[in-house]
Amino acid sequence: MKLASYKSTRRDGELRVVSRDLSRCRAVPKIADTLQQALDDWDSCQSALEQVYAELNAGTGANEPFVQSACHSPLPRAYQWADGSAYLNHVELVRRARGAEVPESFYHDPLMYQGGSDRFIGPQDAIVANPEYGIDFEAEVAVITGDVQLGASVAECGASIRLLMLVNDVSLRGLIPNELAKGFGFFQSKPASAFSPVAITPDELGSHWRDFKVHLPLEVQLNEQPFGCPNAGQDMTFNFAELVAHIAKTRELGAGSIVGSGTVSNKQGNLHGSSIANGGVGYCCLAELRMYETIETGQAQTPFMQHGDQVGIAMHCDGADLFGQIHNRVTAL
Amino acid sequence: MKLASYKSTRRDGELRVVSRDLSRCRAVPKIADTLQQALDDWDSCQSALEQVYAELNAGTGANEPFVQSACHSPLPRAYQWADGSAYLNHVELVRRARGAEVPESFYHDPLMYQGGSDRFIGPQDAIVANPEYGIDFEAEVAVITGDVQLGASVAECGASIRLLMLVNDVSLRGLIPNELAKGFGFFQSKPASAFSPVAITPDELGSHWRDFKVHLPLEVQLNEQPFGCPNAGQDMTFNFAELVAHIAKTRELGAGSIVGSGTVSNKQGNLHGSSIANGGVGYCCLAELRMYETIETGQAQTPFMQHGDQVGIAMHCDGADLFGQIHNRVTAL
Repeated sequence: MKLASYKSTRRDGELRVVSRDLSRCRAVPKIADTLQQALDDWDSCQSALEQVYAELNAGTGANEPFVQSACHSPLPRAYQWADGSAYLNHVELVRRARGAEVPESFYHDPLMYQGGSDRFIGPQDAIVANPEYGIDFEAEVAVITGDVQLGASVAECGASIRLLMLVNDVSLRGLIPNELAKGFGFFQSKPASAFSPVAITPDELGSHWRDFKVHLPLEVQLNEQPFGCPNAGQDMTFNFAELVAHIAKTRELGAGSIVGSGTVSNKQGNLHGSSIANGGVGYCCLAELRMYETIETGQAQTPFMQHGDQVGIAMHCDGADLFGQIHNRVTAL
Repeated sequence: MKLASYKSTRRDGELRVVSRDLSRCRAVPKIADTLQQALDDWDSCQSALEQVYAELNAGTGANEPFVQSACHSPLPRAYQWADGSAYLNHVELVRRARGAEVPESFYHDPLMYQGGSDRFIGPQDAIVANPEYGIDFEAEVAVITGDVQLGASVAECGASIRLLMLVNDVSLRGLIPNELAKGFGFFQSKPASAFSPVAITPDELGSHWRDFKVHLPLEVQLNEQPFGCPNAGQDMTFNFAELVAHIAKTRELGAGSIVGSGTVSNKQGNLHGSSIANGGVGYCCLAELRMYETIETGQAQTPFMQHGDQVGIAMHCDGADLFGQIHNRVTAL
């Protein structure tokens, strides 16, 4: 099943069920006005939503063209956005670039930060920020959970996963060093994130959803040129069930909690071989390319995003667009 | 005006307008079902809510007894809970206890972390946690904001403050050192917080609300014995308008964002003189007493909370209870 939220005068948008091929959609006010409402009452909404989805795919019943540019993020605001850092290759590069070791504990205790969730931007909205802060994208996968009990097992956490999305976790790199030095983690360095137009149930991925990972390439474009295509199922040290369990260790999770994977990153050789042009899988953020440059040439050369730069994030399976397209262009503040 | 949310089968509870003396209340489904609804549409709800409040205070119109134990936190879940650390005396003690200096930047750049907000506990609910994690309370003041624009000025941020509450920011002290060492800030060490039964508009404080600070003692009891009564208006390095502006520097805030002060803490002399029994103003968390013990005797002696221990948090003005009572008792997991 595929679900989206059209922008509207309501803060939570208007729920739409979307056909598998992203061509048609239907509002379902008799089932739920918003995605959060559906998640709050998932057990009683799910089968009715699935029924509409089946009709849309069969071309029966009321429907209208689906317009990705009309979408807000599937949850325009959420009660939780917790972002892991499950691809340790990214962390290893960060550390190598500054000559530090990765602590052994990082391989069994996930890194995770609590992000702001009161106002996301839409999948095709502008990133409004000051380029002096070092604007970067981070292409990720995220899940939306149902309710999770305190101390839930990894299996229970896996079973709580309702939906999957793609994410652009916008980061202000220039603000990160001072902020982390203060000891309280990211805050001003993480402005509003954007999510894919469509959230999908895990069964949409078929055999590509296994071990609570998405085994497909995550496609990133910078100014319409290929920039990254690492496989999101590869080199993911902690799967989504384990990331949710990390949260549940000391607290319950409420339905509609969003949990992110962190920047997708595959282990590669060196700078020369890692770019897509040279046969590598490229990068899901500018910082990673800059780290290769730093490690191999002593200095980062690729600039962060400037006014007018655009990042695209998408995922396909057998040629079909799964989540719709994230396109965020920088508007310099 | 005073507002509360009764527990109900709905996740957001049921909004109640409460009389100034906390004796009577009224449900207002024709104005708003929930506090978040009222905050989402504050400009059109406020005067109708104020009218009900005036009737309750005059003893006219429908009303029922107000029962604090029936309350959830005013926002049982919220889209944002960002907690500052505005009382630098607390930070200075933390640092002194481990022989470190407070960086000069801390006096002009607020410390703040993003907390989980998908499920708070109620003002008189149990703290369910493992005592081996070092369970502590932190008594604080918090504001709830309306919408705030990106880059809003301190004055604009001050004008966005809609409501005030008290907070028990539950902390798991034993998990903090490892978590901060990882570099991403608090996460598992900050389980669900509890808020006072009632949220109040700033005008309820009269002249005690000035400079965007609450100039009244915050009263803390441990197992029904006085433990702290520092003045929340004293030694607050960053006021609430400045804390909100810290967030707005790189992003908008959505209506219903909760912003906390951090543990209230007044500068005092030494361990002996700082306890209430010895004429001091005491402490708003166990950690602070333990830091005095560490600094002066080389070792912390007061234990963290055990099964059955209870913390109480309240604030009075001229004998009148302003926010109702937080009473959280530990249930060992």
